Amino acid sequence: MPTLTPAHVTAATFNQALTRFRAALGTEWVLASDEDRATYHDPYSMGDGLDHEPSAALAPASAEEVRAIVRIANEFKIPLWPVSRGKNLGYGGAAPVQKGNVVLDMGRMKRIDVDPKYAHCLIEPGVSYFDLYNHLKDNDIALWMSVPGNGWGSVLGNALDRGIGYTPYGDHTDTLCGLEVVLPDGDLLRTGMGSMANSKVWQAYHYGYGPGWDQMFVQSNLGIVTRGGMWLQPEPDMSARVSLALPHLDDAAWALDILAELRRRDVIQHNIVFGTPVRSASVMSQRKDWYDGPGALPDAVNEAMMKKLGLGWWNTKLSLFGYAGAVEAHIKLIRDLFEPRIGKPLEFEIWHKGDPAEKSARGIPSTMPLNSVNWYGGRGGHLSFAPVMPPDGRLILDYAKGTKAIYDEMGHDYSASFTIGKRHINNVSLIFYDRDDAAMTARVDTLYRRLVARAARDGFAEYRGHIDYQGMIADTFDFNNHALGRLNERVKKALDPNNVIAPGRNGIGRADTSTLTTAKGAKA
Amino acid sequence: MPTLTPAHVTAATFNQALTRFRAALGTEWVLASDEDRATYHDPYSMGDGLDHEPSAALAPASAEEVRAIVRIANEFKIPLWPVSRGKNLGYGGAAPVQKGNVVLDMGRMKRIDVDPKYAHCLIEPGVSYFDLYNHLKDNDIALWMSVPGNGWGSVLGNALDRGIGYTPYGDHTDTLCGLEVVLPDGDLLRTGMGSMANSKVWQAYHYGYGPGWDQMFVQSNLGIVTRGGMWLQPEPDMSARVSLALPHLDDAAWALDILAELRRRDVIQHNIVFGTPVRSASVMSQRKDWYDGPGALPDAVNEAMMKKLGLGWWNTKLSLFGYAGAVEAHIKLIRDLFEPRIGKPLEFEIWHKGDPAEKSARGIPSTMPLNSVNWYGGRGGHLSFAPVMPPDGRLILDYAKGTKAIYDEMGHDYSASFTIGKRHINNVSLIFYDRDDAAMTARVDTLYRRLVARAARDGFAEYRGHIDYQGMIADTFDFNNHALGRLNERVKKALDPNNVIAPGRNGIGRADTSTLTTAKGAKA
Repeated sequence: MPTLTPAHVTAATFNQALTRFRAALGTEWVLASDEDRATYHDPYSMGDGLDHEPSAALAPASAEEVRAIVRIANEFKIPLWPVSRGKNLGYGGAAPVQKGNVVLDMGRMKRIDVDPKYAHCLIEPGVSYFDLYNHLKDNDIALWMSVPGNGWGSVLGNALDRGIGYTPYGDHTDTLCGLEVVLPDGDLLRTGMGSMANSKVWQAYHYGYGPGWDQMFVQSNLGIVTRGGMWLQPEPDMSARVSLALPHLDDAAWALDILAELRRRDVIQHNIVFGTPVRSASVMSQRKDWYDGPGALPDAVNEAMMKKLGLGWWNTKLSLFGYAGAVEAHIKLIRDLFEPRIGKPLEFEIWHKGDPAEKSARGIPSTMPLNSVNWYGGRGGHLSFAPVMPPDGRLILDYAKGTKAIYDEMGHDYSASFTIGKRHINNVSLIFYDRDDAAMTARVDTLYRRLVARAARDGFAEYRGHIDYQGMIADTFDFNNHALGRLNERVKKALDPNNVIAPGRNGIGRADTSTLTTAKGAKA
Repeated sequence: MPTLTPAHVTAATFNQALTRFRAALGTEWVLASDEDRATYHDPYSMGDGLDHEPSAALAPASAEEVRAIVRIANEFKIPLWPVSRGKNLGYGGAAPVQKGNVVLDMGRMKRIDVDPKYAHCLIEPGVSYFDLYNHLKDNDIALWMSVPGNGWGSVLGNALDRGIGYTPYGDHTDTLCGLEVVLPDGDLLRTGMGSMANSKVWQAYHYGYGPGWDQMFVQSNLGIVTRGGMWLQPEPDMSARVSLALPHLDDAAWALDILAELRRRDVIQHNIVFGTPVRSASVMSQRKDWYDGPGALPDAVNEAMMKKLGLGWWNTKLSLFGYAGAVEAHIKLIRDLFEPRIGKPLEFEIWHKGDPAEKSARGIPSTMPLNSVNWYGGRGGHLSFAPVMPPDGRLILDYAKGTKAIYDEMGHDYSASFTIGKRHINNVSLIFYDRDDAAMTARVDTLYRRLVARAARDGFAEYRGHIDYQGMIADTFDFNNHALGRLNERVKKALDPNNVIAPGRNGIGRADTSTLTTAKGAKA
């Protein structure tokens, strides 16, 4: 008998479904033991994470197996929670919104096809950043990729959750070009130009003929992406990168204005991270190395950190890519803009074609940034509060000061990590915690809710959220009495009448979750 | 009594509906006289165009009026054909796929809101390229726009049909950032960040939270866009442009490879047009000025044209934008690549901030390119055969030779106008005709169908099509027994159960058209 069943599914029915899943996938790919299930818990969950515990996991090897799973799921009304590699750390990992969903783990699907000439690839969800990087290296393919903070993650999965990196191809969802999708009824779709059976241009053109559906399957539960096209960056002739450390809190106002302008004009072609000392310190040290008092980190400790680590109040890295003449012209422009203000020459690290990869500004997968979750000690985790805001330095700084004041009031260490996009700045604040410290996680929960509510009141929305908060965030999109939510639900109902794909994902298809919502009490 | 009613609607019911439309909009904005209706015919239709004749037109002034229209349309089952300004020339103008639809003409909705600081605008569908250009000029706003060949057209409408221009913002649909849409049931949606009621970042961020819907309303009949955000180009410090004329047919092979590489690397940041002599000659002269014989234009006439007009077999214009140092570096790169091959120095036209607009590479609206439809004399029209292909020079050239051979065989003048995008080349061939020459239009119809069928056989799809061919093109997307079409129809049915919005647009919602399809015979 299973330990846990999906909501509204009896143990007997669930056993029948598991038997059918085993027949479709092979016994070894239906994972229902307590030990197996535990591997799909959210590693950053506040507390034990049992309110997001899956009832089982399935590991298909192909789109055809995914189709078989979906057909069985419809027959037995088994809700599935598809994950690419389950490494969506900070957003729930592999764990479902609803307790008892069956995780559909696509980590075994690792096929990579790269087109070196046309600079794109077609990959399966199990392909990690390390996998793709090694594939490019091992095959001497002169294409660069963009990587986020976690090299373990799925390249496709990250793009499907609108993750970002820090190169010209760092708007990962924008680099998607054509998806293969198993629809909730088991039908198989190819989007864009791939919707022609013998198409030679699936990855060549971002659009198709008629309505475009790629973004319908992003942050979504309207289908299961089994393959996706992505554009890669042709290796440039030259790259250059430089670190900037700005000593004063108020430097953000002018610096963000300059950086946003350079980003808008495509001089800087990547998302620019702009962060406080704790952001940098947390990767290489723990809080206790600096301070062991209660409450928020005093400003004096931040100053000590800056001094010891050679940081500014704000720290950023800029990269340039392209033909040598143009990169050199842009280096001069950046020098002219920043050197008079910071009073010393900038040191650019230069890479020319043929130099070692480590000297370049290319994306190299790493897991180093994950160290930051150990800030408070214990079993660490983090949340990211990331409202999308207009790219105005003064506005961003004042808003961040307001955010910091709330952190201070609640006694939590403030850590900012803004991201500058083409027309917006993501006013990101990280919230670190020790997941086993109940007082701290209660505080973090309250802090996060306060921040989201304040941002929504001011007209700023989150772009992404942890499974605990996806419904709450969805509810902040309230134009015309939640017209967006109504549209989402209508399409969901049309494509997934049994609500078998990721119920509750980003707030969609919550109808069935009333019992769980009640059970979660204040947190729902 | 109305001269014409929508399919399956009695004259009495239609009269009732018109009365209700008059009450909602005011009598003067319900246009049902024969004279009024004639203004909505396709000006390029082959023959009289009566197979796409509308039964009436409605001209709302606001989204609220559009909502009222849609509610009445549902009540009386009146199919509506929304157009922004009705200037989608070459694709049907304002005329509906189905004879008898009521045109919903949004030309009166002309509100423009520009954000000069953040470089975006929010506009209504009635705003033409001339309107937006004048608005920017009259208000001294240092933002540039991208324009297609027809300055009369709707800025928003063109983006919603995936039209293009020739500046860094020339992928018009990609510059969309947030839409306001009246759904087929009259509900009002805002997409992206605008789905938060008090949003301050509607035009700041391309995506929203959860599935992205902007592209769902592109080349679509799933809603009526009443307002749209678009990004504009910050005025650069410098621009440069240069014309290239390549003397030999086979020059396309190497030149396209170089240009595609420069486009892929973003040195050239705009869609590059690459065309034959007739393309250029047709804007400033007619066929009879060069040749009055039957059949396809002999090669010798093409050569004469090249000599007289200083053209090459292939002709293109390249533009550069940015900071002076970078533009100069890229000028040098282009000289190094092309001058040794063409044996003479290139002449760049340089613009620096402050110089007259005419010297710049900015988009300036014009209607000059429309002259090309007069090539054959009489009342002219054109079709565009535009399969999306991989950016390989040899492949594109060989395919174009095959296309030209079909033109030659059928006795029609070949005119190519390739467009080089970031990862594709649109192997565009223009087909000019005299719409009142029945033998010629029959030939053109056969030619177009042959070309589309040949491309589909080879794995290359059209990106857009005239109302006569939208269904036929849709049918070429045949992966998994037309999975894309099935998805389109499911969403259509869920959102528009009465099929009141643009039935048949891009092949979607054709179910109801059986009688008309039969009536059209071979053309359907």
